[in-house]
Amino acid sequence: MKWLKRIATAFVCCIILLQSAAQNKILVFQSDFGLKDGAVSAMKGVAMGVSTDLKLFDITHEIPAYNIWEAAYRLQQTAQYWPAGTVFVSVVDPGVGSTRKSVVLKTKKGQFFVTPDNGTLTLIAESQGIDEIREIDEKKNRRPGSSESYTFHGRDVYAYTGARLAAGVIGFEDIGNKLSKKVVRIDYQKANFDKGIIKGNIPILDIQYGNIWTNIDGDLFKKLKLKYGDSLHVSIYQNNQKVYEGDMPYATTFSAVEKGKPLCYLNSLLNVSFALNEENFSETNKVFNGPEWTVEISKK
Amino acid sequence: MKWLKRIATAFVCCIILLQSAAQNKILVFQSDFGLKDGAVSAMKGVAMGVSTDLKLFDITHEIPAYNIWEAAYRLQQTAQYWPAGTVFVSVVDPGVGSTRKSVVLKTKKGQFFVTPDNGTLTLIAESQGIDEIREIDEKKNRRPGSSESYTFHGRDVYAYTGARLAAGVIGFEDIGNKLSKKVVRIDYQKANFDKGIIKGNIPILDIQYGNIWTNIDGDLFKKLKLKYGDSLHVSIYQNNQKVYEGDMPYATTFSAVEKGKPLCYLNSLLNVSFALNEENFSETNKVFNGPEWTVEISKK
Amino acid sequence: MKWLKRIATAFVCCIILLQSAAQNKILVFQSDFGLKDGAVSAMKGVAMGVSTDLKLFDITHEIPAYNIWEAAYRLQQTAQYWPAGTVFVSVVDPGVGSTRKSVVLKTKKGQFFVTPDNGTLTLIAESQGIDEIREIDEKKNRRPGSSESYTFHGRDVYAYTGARLAAGVIGFEDIGNKLSKKVVRIDYQKANFDKGIIKGNIPILDIQYGNIWTNIDGDLFKKLKLKYGDSLHVSIYQNNQKVYEGDMPYATTFSAVEKGKPLCYLNSLLNVSFALNEENFSETNKVFNGPEWTVEISKK
Repeated sequence: MKWLKRIATAFVCCIILLQSAAQNKILVFQSDFGLKDGAVSAMKGVAMGVSTDLKLFDITHEIPAYNIWEAAYRLQQTAQYWPAGTVFVSVVDPGVGSTRKSVVLKTKKGQFFVTPDNGTLTLIAESQGIDEIREIDEKKNRRPGSSESYTFHGRDVYAYTGARLAAGVIGFEDIGNKLSKKVVRIDYQKANFDKGIIKGNIPILDIQYGNIWTNIDGDLFKKLKLKYGDSLHVSIYQNNQKVYEGDMPYATTFSAVEKGKPLCYLNSLLNVSFALNEENFSETNKVFNGPEWTVEISKK
Repeated sequence: MKWLKRIATAFVCCIILLQSAAQNKILVFQSDFGLKDGAVSAMKGVAMGVSTDLKLFDITHEIPAYNIWEAAYRLQQTAQYWPAGTVFVSVVDPGVGSTRKSVVLKTKKGQFFVTPDNGTLTLIAESQGIDEIREIDEKKNRRPGSSESYTFHGRDVYAYTGARLAAGVIGFEDIGNKLSKKVVRIDYQKANFDKGIIKGNIPILDIQYGNIWTNIDGDLFKKLKLKYGDSLHVSIYQNNQKVYEGDMPYATTFSAVEKGKPLCYLNSLLNVSFALNEENFSETNKVFNGPEWTVEISKK
Repeated sequence: MKWLKRIATAFVCCIILLQSAAQNKILVFQSDFGLKDGAVSAMKGVAMGVSTDLKLFDITHEIPAYNIWEAAYRLQQTAQYWPAGTVFVSVVDPGVGSTRKSVVLKTKKGQFFVTPDNGTLTLIAESQGIDEIREIDEKKNRRPGSSESYTFHGRDVYAYTGARLAAGVIGFEDIGNKLSKKVVRIDYQKANFDKGIIKGNIPILDIQYGNIWTNIDGDLFKKLKLKYGDSLHVSIYQNNQKVYEGDMPYATTFSAVEKGKPLCYLNSLLNVSFALNEENFSETNKVFNGPEWTVEISKK
């Protein structure tokens, strides 16, 4: 019976080890492909062909076509909520087939980003820090039989390589040569505080509700020394032309103001945001997002 | 060899037990977030951080913004096809941050619904019966590090709690205090039969095809003593104003009438419905859904 | 210790066998249901009720309503990237409840297609070859308790049968009677080369980007004896009326031409395609897809 117990223990350990080794075979996709055709499914089929143990998820495939900035933003917004070890494949690639590099970035937290190095990594590199970047060697890391196709790197290089990395078929060092710790960077307006005014940019909309999300974080915002209920004066510019000007309270919940009224709040990323309660701030006030949008906030 | 066999049997049993214990770690999401941003992915990342054994699915994330009634309807329409033990997380939450309670309802069938108690549970509570309701104690059941964020309970409370419940990290009794078996209820017109006329409501459209789905079930409909091919007289009102009036046959298949012609049929939920064969009844006749819509049906 | 090693080896083998037996329990859905209601989720719930070991994926649920041709096209485009053994469930079914047969086609590669035989199998049968077709016997292969519902075969017959086949609950021979190796076929224009002109059809658009995909493959295209950079003359007709005429280079990458300029390239399926660099060829030139569209290409 003693033997039985020992062997049993050994095997339970063995099973646990096998299972832990199998953990976080997570592969998360993002693209501007949309969900109307078969492109996303082809990428997932390729991944399942690498290993059926992989767990496949999505950020979104509704990135506006060719919009690298939004790809960068969605990665930064989302990756932090996924476990260490997760492999992300992001394919917004207007320069497919040109000289842009295909890379895998490993962050300090131990997540991997498989993508063209075309600006997509701008925000992840800033916020999470670069542990190492390698250029994908397409001689070794390309779906067999795909060498005649020039235009679907998402399927033949990125999905294939991401799947093999996530499944443990290859290690990070098998990706290709190490690059210097730099990524192609999209320039954007940083948030700052000067003489009682906070300036910032609108990187993204909370598109489903039409809320305005700025790049001004809660810590910088504290310099206005506000308490909930205080009134703020807000101006919004596109290319330095004023598009919106108005007053609104700083509130913790949308229902703090009447339906249709504006409020300022910290969004789920703890950044300063503007909304109309139960209505659409963006459409109502024709305020949108991108590098050409500027926000000014002061205490009233 | 005898020992080997016994040990082998023991381990196979062991493996089977482990596998059965791992069954139905199913977590199904619904929201009004849309699929264009990273919100749904952030919820799924949080769930994978709880346990990579979870199996994540969706009802829809295209509930019209703030439309609690449709959230209630989609849960009722869909939950019945999922196995017992499934955990649903529904986040349509216009009152986020207000005093509405966050709850988990356990149905008599043994499914769990994690949601704000704002009317979302109206139809599931009616149709499946309440076994127990508990209020989510956010002191214990909230994503670590999320206490400064006021506006994304979907990620920090509902997805996190649903994932821990589905993964067996917590039991139902760990959710929080037991509440009385009542939910916040949205009032709606019930179906009835009187003097040869059946009245009812249009809770939802079969939106992809523009078919009209009523809340009149097949059993009540039998009181008209119809056989297939019989002609019906149908009137549809919005706020008591007549919007549509016409005759149509009771049919088992769309192709029983010519392309573009109306028919009455029992839909996949066995409720009375109206359609145009291969065309869109809703758009053609400007008939939509909600509590203000009434239907009258009689035999011709 | 020798015993321990042998037993260990035996069990590791045993685990590997169990895992390989569990491999490719892949079920891939396609429909024209959209993602706004609960229909897709109901199908997946039914599949999870059959076996929680199944891995569920999607091609798309945004096939235009009742468009059998696009259903056929998306299967052909996508299935080749999924492993052998994968079960596809395709539900674009305008004739639901009529006399069209419900079938499962097994291809020579060993994939299974569960669908109404209404033209959906046209292209898969041509490109992958038919190993065997069986008619679904609904007496045996129908979700218990669903016999009163006439209109949701996708859930009650196709998803249920596909799930049981993918999970190994039934074998292919349990589907129903063997049929002759023929499918209902949609007629379409084949590609050909004659006197220096290549003619073909536009089966589909690369809808997200508005690129034009033809059915002219790379091998036929070689008969024009082109090298990259050569100029082509392209005419496009709808019902023999000229809609577009212009010159463009044959290029390997979109960025080979200026933004907004046309190019001809081999798409990810290695078929001849037309695009505007970073713009939408289809919308700009009012060129769409379907059997009534013809393309003519010659060397300039």
